[in-house]
Amino acid sequence: MTNHRNFKFQLVFFYFYANFENFKNQILYQKMAKFLTDREENYAQWYNDLVIKADLAENSAVRGCMVIKPYGYAIWENIQAELDKMFKATGHVNAYFPLFIPKSFFSREAAHVEGFAKECAVVTHYRLKNSENGTGIVVDPDAKLDEELIIRPTSETIIWNSYRNWIQSYRDLPILINQWANVVRWEMRTRLFLRTAEFLWQEGHTAHATREEAVEETMKMINVYTEFAEKYMALPVIRGYKTDNEKFAGAIDTYSIEALMQDGKALQAGTSHFLGQNFAKAFDVQFTDRNGKLDYVWATSWGLSTRMIGALIMAHSDNKGLVLPPKLAPLQTVIIPIFKNAEQLGKITELALRLKSELEKAGIKVKYDDRDNNTPGWKFSNYEFKGVPVRIAIGPRDLENSTAEIARRDTLTKETISVASVTGRVIKLLEEIQGNIYNKALQFMKENTYYPDKWSDFVDIIENRGGFVMAHWDGTSETELKIKEETKATIRCIPFDSGEEEGKCIFSGKPSKRRVLFARAY
Amino acid sequence: MTNHRNFKFQLVFFYFYANFENFKNQILYQKMAKFLTDREENYAQWYNDLVIKADLAENSAVRGCMVIKPYGYAIWENIQAELDKMFKATGHVNAYFPLFIPKSFFSREAAHVEGFAKECAVVTHYRLKNSENGTGIVVDPDAKLDEELIIRPTSETIIWNSYRNWIQSYRDLPILINQWANVVRWEMRTRLFLRTAEFLWQEGHTAHATREEAVEETMKMINVYTEFAEKYMALPVIRGYKTDNEKFAGAIDTYSIEALMQDGKALQAGTSHFLGQNFAKAFDVQFTDRNGKLDYVWATSWGLSTRMIGALIMAHSDNKGLVLPPKLAPLQTVIIPIFKNAEQLGKITELALRLKSELEKAGIKVKYDDRDNNTPGWKFSNYEFKGVPVRIAIGPRDLENSTAEIARRDTLTKETISVASVTGRVIKLLEEIQGNIYNKALQFMKENTYYPDKWSDFVDIIENRGGFVMAHWDGTSETELKIKEETKATIRCIPFDSGEEEGKCIFSGKPSKRRVLFARAY
Repeated sequence: MTNHRNFKFQLVFFYFYANFENFKNQILYQKMAKFLTDREENYAQWYNDLVIKADLAENSAVRGCMVIKPYGYAIWENIQAELDKMFKATGHVNAYFPLFIPKSFFSREAAHVEGFAKECAVVTHYRLKNSENGTGIVVDPDAKLDEELIIRPTSETIIWNSYRNWIQSYRDLPILINQWANVVRWEMRTRLFLRTAEFLWQEGHTAHATREEAVEETMKMINVYTEFAEKYMALPVIRGYKTDNEKFAGAIDTYSIEALMQDGKALQAGTSHFLGQNFAKAFDVQFTDRNGKLDYVWATSWGLSTRMIGALIMAHSDNKGLVLPPKLAPLQTVIIPIFKNAEQLGKITELALRLKSELEKAGIKVKYDDRDNNTPGWKFSNYEFKGVPVRIAIGPRDLENSTAEIARRDTLTKETISVASVTGRVIKLLEEIQGNIYNKALQFMKENTYYPDKWSDFVDIIENRGGFVMAHWDGTSETELKIKEETKATIRCIPFDSGEEEGKCIFSGKPSKRRVLFARAY
Repeated sequence: MTNHRNFKFQLVFFYFYANFENFKNQILYQKMAKFLTDREENYAQWYNDLVIKADLAENSAVRGCMVIKPYGYAIWENIQAELDKMFKATGHVNAYFPLFIPKSFFSREAAHVEGFAKECAVVTHYRLKNSENGTGIVVDPDAKLDEELIIRPTSETIIWNSYRNWIQSYRDLPILINQWANVVRWEMRTRLFLRTAEFLWQEGHTAHATREEAVEETMKMINVYTEFAEKYMALPVIRGYKTDNEKFAGAIDTYSIEALMQDGKALQAGTSHFLGQNFAKAFDVQFTDRNGKLDYVWATSWGLSTRMIGALIMAHSDNKGLVLPPKLAPLQTVIIPIFKNAEQLGKITELALRLKSELEKAGIKVKYDDRDNNTPGWKFSNYEFKGVPVRIAIGPRDLENSTAEIARRDTLTKETISVASVTGRVIKLLEEIQGNIYNKALQFMKENTYYPDKWSDFVDIIENRGGFVMAHWDGTSETELKIKEETKATIRCIPFDSGEEEGKCIFSGKPSKRRVLFARAY
């Protein structure tokens, strides 16, 4: 018995076992699989195919709004569960604030309204009625709201309007609240998960007695996101400050984590904002400090959204379909029987259910797929496509030898091991896969990070290679905007860890003290 | 050492230990506590006071929309966690559909639009801009939507429009999907949790190949709600069919669970709808059955909302504040130290943290409150008010005797037991309390269920006593509406378990074969 079942074996297998129905399915599936455009051919199309064909999400009848299908939503549930634990471990609690924001609230913070006004969904009426000609329903003109309501694009304004009543003294601080919610930003060009009119996210909104404490919270939460991205999503990220052009509308400082996708574009994966006293001033939230002095409250906010599912897909997947990090995969292991008759299936099922129960006891999400209307080959391809990290196959020869075949999705390698060692091996494999896809992504990021010192090199990298470009910048918005205009590259962040280095701005030649991270971005 | 620390002891205690700050807090708290109107005096005011003063929720600046505060939201998180487990155990998966519904979708099912049109929030524009006179922002008239979007009041229409593309053959069925979401119904008179313009809920939407399977699912889910209400919420309920007047707009049949509140009014706590082929027909969702015949798909939907938090409060709480069932309480046990100096506090803290860790290992949500800016008495009242099921107090005498005082919120009784037996006792007490408040509510329901056979008795009960009224009804909408007009009582449901009984309609005197459940309702 070799470690790899070869192609010949598969052919022999099909010769013996495949009935016409199975054969037809196999052909259909192969046809379907071809609809997954190659990553190298058209990355955008590959991504879209993958999201739709892996049943993660689809476009809805409402412009820019997606339907998150059960398999995609299960990933979001896993993201939620892990993040929520991390938030609670750092002292936060959840709450829920209204979907609607009165238009007047929204405009109280000048930079904030400027940043969001162009993408707001507006509720103007609260009733429908039958049309006068009897052909359908119309908006009742008598049910016009005195003041229009904005569907929250983010909740700082409605939340700080509540905090005003909650905070009198330093004893009421800090407030450490998170909200899981849907938000709406009327984006003109949308893409499943990456940019949709409605999306799901969490938004933390905290209130503090001092500037130092708020800055500390802002940093703490970008670190929580970093840990989450690296440990759970297997996604290496660069932490840093946003420039004034790129920061959150209403923030003093925005920290972000930036990840590199396989097409060389950056994706902002999470942001944490130090809001200073801006929202406290806009909503008149003052408190009495320890010395009896009245002051405005200090604020932070931080968010991470369903966009992360897009990052997950784009960072790890390949031409055979999804590759999911075991820690977030809805299904971690699948067991597939290979059989030619009911008697064999019976025996295999007995063994498979025993293994399934062992694996479940070890906390592994496992499924036994004994459907008889698809061939094992079809199932192999299908679960590969769906990114299930580990596949266990059990055939008649395995029954004889007390073995099982274990295949891993990330490397597509297989091994045949004794039944007794399956559970231990799977536990270990899931860890290995989690580590391996992180390392692969880290390696990719390293190999695709450049340090040009000449403008022509910068342009060449951005135009022809893509990737993270660490270059000197003179610190002016003017230069930043000109670079964007000429190359579509933006400053993703000023990395916390980039270190001081004397140099000259890649564009203007003026002196610079550190490199910043440029890239084209999603 | 007696089982009860008496009032005298408390006075002595305060004489020795209370400093002025503590004393002031105590007075303040007693003043505050008086703001909780007595239940018997004004039930509606009692409820509202309780929700607000126990920090469960508050009204927001947006008409009819509430803010669910952390303590209230923690109850919702517990409800979600338990229900979600039950849904998954019965084969359901979660997904997410858009917040928005195109107006035209909404009106495709005639009864459905009729039922919801009057309470819809309507989005008409997608952009704001600076006003021409420069004084603020206005809705951009150029950004008018071609078709208005309705904020979902429920999602049948947008979901069945998606299902059309998901279902071709019986092999694609059943679809067993649930969604956790916010919905908006523009109610004119709102009350925290019970009736708000925006609320949180879950809505299940399933698709089946046969009528029988859909009916079975409808029943299965009303049974899940029943089990949840009784086992977790400690809330006895009556299951039954809604009459045509009361059923869901678009359903063939609605099953509901009805609970009795302490003021004698009924509250509909969860509904499960058999939708027949109504939505499949409205959205043209057909499938090929096992015999190759084309048919419309059969549907159910079922929902339970944040309204349940209102039911929880109204069913169990008293004039001292909340009484929460241990299985859903955000905090199940609190440990309070009674001390006069730092040395004592140190020793008590050592013991308290040991107990806390023991209790946490047993899966109990426990907090040690060693804040020194409030008296133990203030804390006692406060946690009583918040409905924490079990309180553990440890004072200097307990240290000497290796004892602790355990108090239960439901009966307000106390006992002093050895430290070694605390964890075991608390585990048992939490079960006892869960059982006791269920039994108390069941007893109340039984005592307040009436079986009148004369119209004058019926009216007298409804007007003067309240409660569940089981009475004969002739089965006509006409009679039902007349009874409602005269007494404000409606048929809450036709109970599954009421049994056949010959009788005469309480109102018309016409023959009837079973009693139905009447009540005034929330």
